[in-house]
Amino acid sequence: MEILLDCLPCMLRQALEASRLATDQTDLQEKIMEDSIRILLHYKEYKSSPDLCKAIHRAVKKHTCVKDPYAEIKKRDINAAKKILPDLLGFLKSKQNSLYWALKIAATGNIIDSAINNNGRMMECIEEELRKDFSICDLGHFQDKLKTAKSLLIIGDNAGETVFDRVLAERLFPLDTTYAVRSEPVINDATVEDAYASGLADYTKIISTGCSAPGAVLEDCSEEFLHTFECADIIISKGQGNFEALSGCGKPIFFLLKAKCEMISQKLGVCLNEYVFKHTESI
Amino acid sequence: MEILLDCLPCMLRQALEASRLATDQTDLQEKIMEDSIRILLHYKEYKSSPDLCKAIHRAVKKHTCVKDPYAEIKKRDINAAKKILPDLLGFLKSKQNSLYWALKIAATGNIIDSAINNNGRMMECIEEELRKDFSICDLGHFQDKLKTAKSLLIIGDNAGETVFDRVLAERLFPLDTTYAVRSEPVINDATVEDAYASGLADYTKIISTGCSAPGAVLEDCSEEFLHTFECADIIISKGQGNFEALSGCGKPIFFLLKAKCEMISQKLGVCLNEYVFKHTESI
Repeated sequence: MEILLDCLPCMLRQALEASRLATDQTDLQEKIMEDSIRILLHYKEYKSSPDLCKAIHRAVKKHTCVKDPYAEIKKRDINAAKKILPDLLGFLKSKQNSLYWALKIAATGNIIDSAINNNGRMMECIEEELRKDFSICDLGHFQDKLKTAKSLLIIGDNAGETVFDRVLAERLFPLDTTYAVRSEPVINDATVEDAYASGLADYTKIISTGCSAPGAVLEDCSEEFLHTFECADIIISKGQGNFEALSGCGKPIFFLLKAKCEMISQKLGVCLNEYVFKHTESI
Repeated sequence: MEILLDCLPCMLRQALEASRLATDQTDLQEKIMEDSIRILLHYKEYKSSPDLCKAIHRAVKKHTCVKDPYAEIKKRDINAAKKILPDLLGFLKSKQNSLYWALKIAATGNIIDSAINNNGRMMECIEEELRKDFSICDLGHFQDKLKTAKSLLIIGDNAGETVFDRVLAERLFPLDTTYAVRSEPVINDATVEDAYASGLADYTKIISTGCSAPGAVLEDCSEEFLHTFECADIIISKGQGNFEALSGCGKPIFFLLKAKCEMISQKLGVCLNEYVFKHTESI
């Protein structure tokens, strides 16, 4: 997906957020903002929005020497999600169409960070989101594919959401499932360490995409990942970053996400904040 | 007030909004964004946030040759405000402390644009805002000053809000009141034409600040304005842009505004979206 003009101010806002997490020193925050603005000036040279985002977060690391500004936030989100894991499993058990609801739980995991900030009403907030149907749901197509599939690849998104994905992986078990994460910390995206901390190893093989952008930019991915990507019978791509990096790549992919930005929702033909499980070969 | 890092992404978002109002041509929108990013790189060379904002909106005009991208929006807002003017006057008549409520009406005018987008519930939405008290209200000090004041200067903000200011000017009549507006169209800020269209001429003398920034940057203001500014017994500064340009200028000023951004509310020591009528010589 091309870089939209709307991404530029959003990216600059993110740079400020990350710089404030990494340091209290105003002079360093200013240097990060100046570098970020310089990067934005050349935005057309980047492959996609996640690729541009990677460059900006590299500037944060360069100036502050903090490898993972979101480390604490990621830990908090994983722990919070683990606390409600029994509730999620109980919710799933209470439902008839467990495949649909496991997918819905995995999609809903995307809001764990905002649910935490909801004054102790976390599970209530998650339940409210769980009640919302998918606006697009290619479940039938997914069920067809599952009949013959031998392998499945999930490309993960945020830390914390990983625990919700574990519910889906458990539902799909014993299908040969691989869970791919970022090669390095970037924003609050999950790394291999975060995937293990979320308990995904019980149900999936955990690998890195080899790419440190907040989305699997194929040109930068490792051979190991690309091999898995090519050979997987089914691919599920989680979240907006992977959608931006992978839409239009030509490979059939199930995109599983909440459309949290106006641009992504327009691209998917849904309203803001709606849930999507969309199979596509050519968005 | 110094330019905060938070202003930079916000400014870039504004540049995109204005460019889309001015033109449908993507290549021109891209040029405006690139120019805006270049301007942001030198943000420290600008006197204040409104000064930086002026430079960005000049880039919009340069690339599109559209002198006033917000012309239609301003017309719509003035007309909408004029429609509910009888309601506003009726509301004021029903109140005992009419000076307080005239000030509150003038402050509330700042939300006319969002009230219009509230699905036909415009007056309902305005009434809801009118019911909220000021969080800071230096009314006593204002009443004291009024006892001896011979002249009052109101530095205006948005078009549409101007109609609400007319209610305040009418309440203060026949005090010798001057209403100052931007010298050129910038964002949805009022110009001399907009002030006349709002009926302010019946109760005030209308002048331009001589400055085309969305805030009265004193170094750029005309001699006529500066003379009025120096000689006025009372000055009321409306909105955030004027607060950013004038806070710390050393002159005693009543700032009348709704704190619509996190940075301004922090500076004023109030919560986001609260109303303020604050007299100050040195914020």
